[in-house]
Amino acid sequence: MKFVRFGEAGQEKPGVLDKNGNIRDLSGKVSDLSGSVLSDLGALKSVDTESLPLVEGSPRLGACVAGTGKFICIGLNYSDHAAETGAQVPPEPIIFMKATSAICGPNDPIIVPRGSEKTDWEVELGVVIGKPGKYISEADALSHVAGYCVINDVSERGFQTERAGQWTKGKSCDNFGQTGPWLVTPDDVADPQNLGMWLDVNGKRMQDGSSKTMVYGVAHLISYLSQFFTLHPGDIISTGTPPGVGMGMKPQQYLKPGDVVELGIEGLGAQRQDVVADA
Amino acid sequence: MKFVRFGEAGQEKPGVLDKNGNIRDLSGKVSDLSGSVLSDLGALKSVDTESLPLVEGSPRLGACVAGTGKFICIGLNYSDHAAETGAQVPPEPIIFMKATSAICGPNDPIIVPRGSEKTDWEVELGVVIGKPGKYISEADALSHVAGYCVINDVSERGFQTERAGQWTKGKSCDNFGQTGPWLVTPDDVADPQNLGMWLDVNGKRMQDGSSKTMVYGVAHLISYLSQFFTLHPGDIISTGTPPGVGMGMKPQQYLKPGDVVELGIEGLGAQRQDVVADA
Repeated sequence: MKFVRFGEAGQEKPGVLDKNGNIRDLSGKVSDLSGSVLSDLGALKSVDTESLPLVEGSPRLGACVAGTGKFICIGLNYSDHAAETGAQVPPEPIIFMKATSAICGPNDPIIVPRGSEKTDWEVELGVVIGKPGKYISEADALSHVAGYCVINDVSERGFQTERAGQWTKGKSCDNFGQTGPWLVTPDDVADPQNLGMWLDVNGKRMQDGSSKTMVYGVAHLISYLSQFFTLHPGDIISTGTPPGVGMGMKPQQYLKPGDVVELGIEGLGAQRQDVVADA
Repeated sequence: MKFVRFGEAGQEKPGVLDKNGNIRDLSGKVSDLSGSVLSDLGALKSVDTESLPLVEGSPRLGACVAGTGKFICIGLNYSDHAAETGAQVPPEPIIFMKATSAICGPNDPIIVPRGSEKTDWEVELGVVIGKPGKYISEADALSHVAGYCVINDVSERGFQTERAGQWTKGKSCDNFGQTGPWLVTPDDVADPQNLGMWLDVNGKRMQDGSSKTMVYGVAHLISYLSQFFTLHPGDIISTGTPPGVGMGMKPQQYLKPGDVVELGIEGLGAQRQDVVADA
């Protein structure tokens, strides 16, 4: 199943795609795609989507998950991306946090912050936690997944690497985490470690990879992270990016107002963002 | 005013201290100490606290703020603490995120995670955001503060520095963020840059400092952080620790189950934690 959240920012309703790809209003069944609803998305399988109210028009889509407590990212998790940034593949996963206030809808603009000269893109496979857990075994890890989605881990490289310690400040700006369009349940994803991924800037293909070249796979990451803290429903793990980011180019290339970014992952849908200057 | 949240974890109610230091139940007036309530705590000044229901006994205290989206920490923000860890004072604030799932009550136990050998303490002045803002000027910064509190920024030094990149994994374990007991409104804090701070382990004074030796003060930090992202009500800024952490001792000293940690800040109350092994 493919779940969405639609409506104006802060007032999104839950929805589900029907057989024809139209959005059906799920707000009569669940309050939102958050918390315990995510723990039991399977219960919604019995709902006849064709009987739900059809959502007319093309509403804005919000992030495909609500109530996210942790927005956890994995650094340098594609061997070829590590190489392009001049870094070694780490001996164990590198983790950092993006601010949850960076989360926005899949087609919301990329806002270039004031003072930014190095706003960059990163298509990533997002994993949304459904079942809470701590010290999860790798064998049991995938049972904790509510679904998968596309994430643009937008990054300001100057803020990230030239502004004193830690990556957080280059990763957490407003609208630096487009999430969606769909939350796709695991039964609709044949193999999360074999999904094509792409990203275009102004129609030119920049990233063209596959989750099969991920260094630490989804099951390992869930188990690994849960050794440090409890994973809660709605937590997002953004699993790293394949090669082709602006920082890795010669010469480096960054986003400027007026640019258009499009990205997607096989079976998980696509995003489209206008790049705008901050007010 | 001094606000608290009392009751079992996940079911806390808002409260306020009366003239005698007793807790009065504020749940008839506000739903929780979160969101828009934090933006207008001043409105509660007109409430006659003596008329509110007296809370009997000594209930557990929860974190003194709810709905925290960002738990932002400032690294190496006391010149003498930087020296003890062998680091330079940074040219601009170092920021990192703790997971919000680490937040707990002021007297909840410190849980030593599995595999930990270097669980350490850090008494810190916490700043809770009330009024949202972005690109805040330093002159206007303190008007965004809902209140101040004590925070124990519990840290696993091995996870933080020996486990591949970024500090997050040593800072985000469950119960690594005791917050409270009180959220003290700015009108009850004469000068946030001149508060005595202390921390004892098993009755022995380990940290004995003052917020006056902070490198980057509260107003600067709020303004600085808001250049990167919007600050929202309930966001916490933990402003760094004075000298005396276990990592800085010769030989280094870390917490073990059975230890007792007590800490406090002048005018903001005290915390007491038992150190326990994880289940």
